[in-house]
Amino acid sequence: MYEEILYEVAEPAAIVTLNRPKQLNAWTNRMAAEVKHAMAQAEADPAVVAIILTGTGRGFCAGADMKVLQGLSQGKGEAAIPDELDAAPGDPAVDESFRGAYTYLMSIRKPVIAAINGPVAGMAVPIAACCDLRFASDQASFLTAFPQRGLIAEWGSGWLLPRLIGPANALDLLFSGRKVGAEEAHRMGLVNRVYEHESLVSETRAYVDQLAANCSPTSISIIKKQVYQSLMDSLATAEKEAFDLMVESFKRPDFGEGVQAFLEKRPPKFERVR
Amino acid sequence: MYEEILYEVAEPAAIVTLNRPKQLNAWTNRMAAEVKHAMAQAEADPAVVAIILTGTGRGFCAGADMKVLQGLSQGKGEAAIPDELDAAPGDPAVDESFRGAYTYLMSIRKPVIAAINGPVAGMAVPIAACCDLRFASDQASFLTAFPQRGLIAEWGSGWLLPRLIGPANALDLLFSGRKVGAEEAHRMGLVNRVYEHESLVSETRAYVDQLAANCSPTSISIIKKQVYQSLMDSLATAEKEAFDLMVESFKRPDFGEGVQAFLEKRPPKFERVR
Amino acid sequence: MYEEILYEVAEPAAIVTLNRPKQLNAWTNRMAAEVKHAMAQAEADPAVVAIILTGTGRGFCAGADMKVLQGLSQGKGEAAIPDELDAAPGDPAVDESFRGAYTYLMSIRKPVIAAINGPVAGMAVPIAACCDLRFASDQASFLTAFPQRGLIAEWGSGWLLPRLIGPANALDLLFSGRKVGAEEAHRMGLVNRVYEHESLVSETRAYVDQLAANCSPTSISIIKKQVYQSLMDSLATAEKEAFDLMVESFKRPDFGEGVQAFLEKRPPKFERVR
Repeated sequence: MYEEILYEVAEPAAIVTLNRPKQLNAWTNRMAAEVKHAMAQAEADPAVVAIILTGTGRGFCAGADMKVLQGLSQGKGEAAIPDELDAAPGDPAVDESFRGAYTYLMSIRKPVIAAINGPVAGMAVPIAACCDLRFASDQASFLTAFPQRGLIAEWGSGWLLPRLIGPANALDLLFSGRKVGAEEAHRMGLVNRVYEHESLVSETRAYVDQLAANCSPTSISIIKKQVYQSLMDSLATAEKEAFDLMVESFKRPDFGEGVQAFLEKRPPKFERVR
Repeated sequence: MYEEILYEVAEPAAIVTLNRPKQLNAWTNRMAAEVKHAMAQAEADPAVVAIILTGTGRGFCAGADMKVLQGLSQGKGEAAIPDELDAAPGDPAVDESFRGAYTYLMSIRKPVIAAINGPVAGMAVPIAACCDLRFASDQASFLTAFPQRGLIAEWGSGWLLPRLIGPANALDLLFSGRKVGAEEAHRMGLVNRVYEHESLVSETRAYVDQLAANCSPTSISIIKKQVYQSLMDSLATAEKEAFDLMVESFKRPDFGEGVQAFLEKRPPKFERVR
Repeated sequence: MYEEILYEVAEPAAIVTLNRPKQLNAWTNRMAAEVKHAMAQAEADPAVVAIILTGTGRGFCAGADMKVLQGLSQGKGEAAIPDELDAAPGDPAVDESFRGAYTYLMSIRKPVIAAINGPVAGMAVPIAACCDLRFASDQASFLTAFPQRGLIAEWGSGWLLPRLIGPANALDLLFSGRKVGAEEAHRMGLVNRVYEHESLVSETRAYVDQLAANCSPTSISIIKKQVYQSLMDSLATAEKEAFDLMVESFKRPDFGEGVQAFLEKRPPKFERVR
C-alpha cells in the first residue's frame, strides 16, 4: 500500500522509513500522507511502544522535492497542507498547536524518535523538530537552506528551534541556512544523542526496548502531553494538572504493578496503550 | 523540634539537611512541613543570605517514601498537598505559579541552592528543580522513575524541566525515567556546577560567602522575582518593570554604597533582607 | 557627526564601533542615541546585509559611565530612556516587546551581531543580549555587577537571559554578578562562537560575507521577525503564520532565483533589503 515509505513493526518499535533513496528521500505530499497513515497505524497498535522515523540510504530527508519547488517557482502547482490518507493519528483533545500539518507528531500518544541517518534538509528540519527525540548518526547533518531559496522559517521551525536550542542558535541556523554536523547539533541541543553510524538504528531500538521493559506506556503518553502542553501554560496550571494526574495515576493498575515490581525486584508488566 | 531534617545557620548560609539517612532521606509529609518551616525561618533571619538544601549520608533524597507509595497502591492513605507547620515562607504577592506545594521555593526572597550530594529520585527531582541553583557532587544522579511506577510528571516537573534543559531532554528523562549522572546533567543544564564529592558543601558555602561579601541581598531578592516572573510575561512587560525597579534602586542606600565601595576599592556593606 | 561611536560600511557589513576607549567604551545617553542613529542608517542602506556592533580597544563596553552612576547615587541627574537622534530604526509593526530602549535591536530588519572584543559589563550585558548573535573573542567576559551596585536585572535582562541560557544559569549570573569568561559563556549558550582575539572581527565579517553570498536578505528579515515573535505566540499561531509567509515567499523573485541558482550550481543574486 505504501509507495514512498516502508513500515515495519519490530516489537516493541514501529519503524517508519522514508524510502525514496535516489532522491535522498525528498518529501512529497504523498510521503506526508503515508507517514501520517503509518503513524496512525503505529499509534493504534498495542504491540508498538514507540515509533522510529528514519530514512533509507545516504540521507534522512532532502526536504521538499526539488521538482516540486521548481514547479512552484515557475507558477506551476501550489503549496498545500498535505492531504490525509484516511488517517487521523494523535489525540484530538490536545491544544491545536499540536494538531497541525506536522506538529500532529507531538500529539501522537507514543514517543516518536527520529533516527537521523544522514542529512536533514529544508522542510525536513521542522519535521524532525516535531519528533520528540532526535538520535543522530555521526554522519547526520542539518541545513534548512531556507534563506538560500528565498524562503522563510517553515512549518513552525521559527517556534520550535528557539525552544530546542535557544533563540540565538536558532537565528544562527535560520539566518545562514548553514550545514550543522551531528556534534555541533548535539552541543546545541538539537539532537539528544550521537551514535556511530552503523549502530544508530540498533541503539535507537535498544532505547525503545528499555522503554518497553521498564516504563508504563500510559505514563509515557500522559507525560508527553504534559511536557508539550506546559510550553503554553503557566506553571500554576501545569502544577495543578500534575496533581490531578498523579491522583488519577494512583488508581490505575500500572501504579500498583510499578510499586510491586520494584519491591519484588522484577521487571514490571504494564498495559500497552490502545 | 525538627524530626526529619537538620537546620543550621552557618552565617551567611542557612543549611537545611534532609535527615533520614537510612531511608536515603525519602520524602514524607512531615519532612515537607519541616522543610517549609525551616525555609520560613531562614528567610526571616537577617543573618542568612542564601539557603542550602542538602541531604545526610549517601543520597540527596530517594523521593516519596516507598511505604507511603506501597500504601497508596493498596488503597491506603491518600495523596495530599503537604500540611503546613505554621510557616508561610515566600512572598505572597508573586504569581500563584510560585506559591504551590513545592514551587513556593521560587518565591522565597533568598537564593535556595540545592547541594546535591547523591541520588535524587522521584518527586525529589521536581523539588530540586524548584531550587534556584543546583550544585552537584560528582556522585550525584537524577532519576524520576515516574514511568517505572506508572506515574506522571509530578509537581510541575513537566513545566520546569523543559525550561531548564529544553523539551527534548525533558522528554528523554521523563519518558525513560533513566538515571542521569552529574556530568550529563551538567551538559544538559540540569545542574549549574559539578564538584568533587568531598568539596560540594564547602564550595556551595563559598558561593554563598561570595554573595554575602559582594552582593546586595535586596538586589538578589528582586532579581529572583524578575527572573521567575519573566517566564510568564512578555518582554515588553518585563522591560518596563525593570525600568521602574531600576529607578527605585537608585533611591536605596545599597546603590550609593555599591557605587562608593567600587570607587573606594573596598567591599560594600549592604543591608541584609528581612 | 558621531562623537562616541565610529560607523563604517564595509560592504556587505556595517560596523558600529563603541569608541570611548579610555573609559572602556562606557555607555552614555549620547552613545545610545548615536548607536540608534547608526542602526537606522545601516538598516536603510541596501549595501548592508548585516550589522556588527563592537568596541574599540581593550573592552566591548564597561556599562553605564561611572560618573553618571556616581551622580545618580548623589541625587544628581536622573535615569532616563535615552533620547533619540532623529532616528527610528526597526519595524514599527512588530510587538512592542521589540520596540523598547534597547530591545529595538530585535526589530531591526537585518541581523545585528555583537563582536565582543573584551569585557561586557553592567547594562552592556542586556544590550549585547538584544543583539541577534554574539561572537566572542577568547578575551571576552561578561559581568552584570548589578547586585554589586545594589541594582536589579536591568533593561530586560531578567527576561532575555533565561531564554538564552535557561533560568538556572540566568539566576547564577544575576545573583552573583560574577565574571564569566568566553568559554563558559559559550557552554551556557550566551555566545554563539568563540574566536581567537585577533580573528574576531575578520571571522564575524566572514560570517556576514557568507550571508550576503548565499542568503536572501528578505528571507533573513522575515525569519528574524518569526523567531522573536514566536517567543510570545503559541505554536499554532506561529505555524499558521509560517504557512502564509511560505506561500508569499513562493511569489517573490528571490524564490525563483534561489531555486534556479541551486539547479545551475551558481551563487544566487538576491534583492537587498530597503
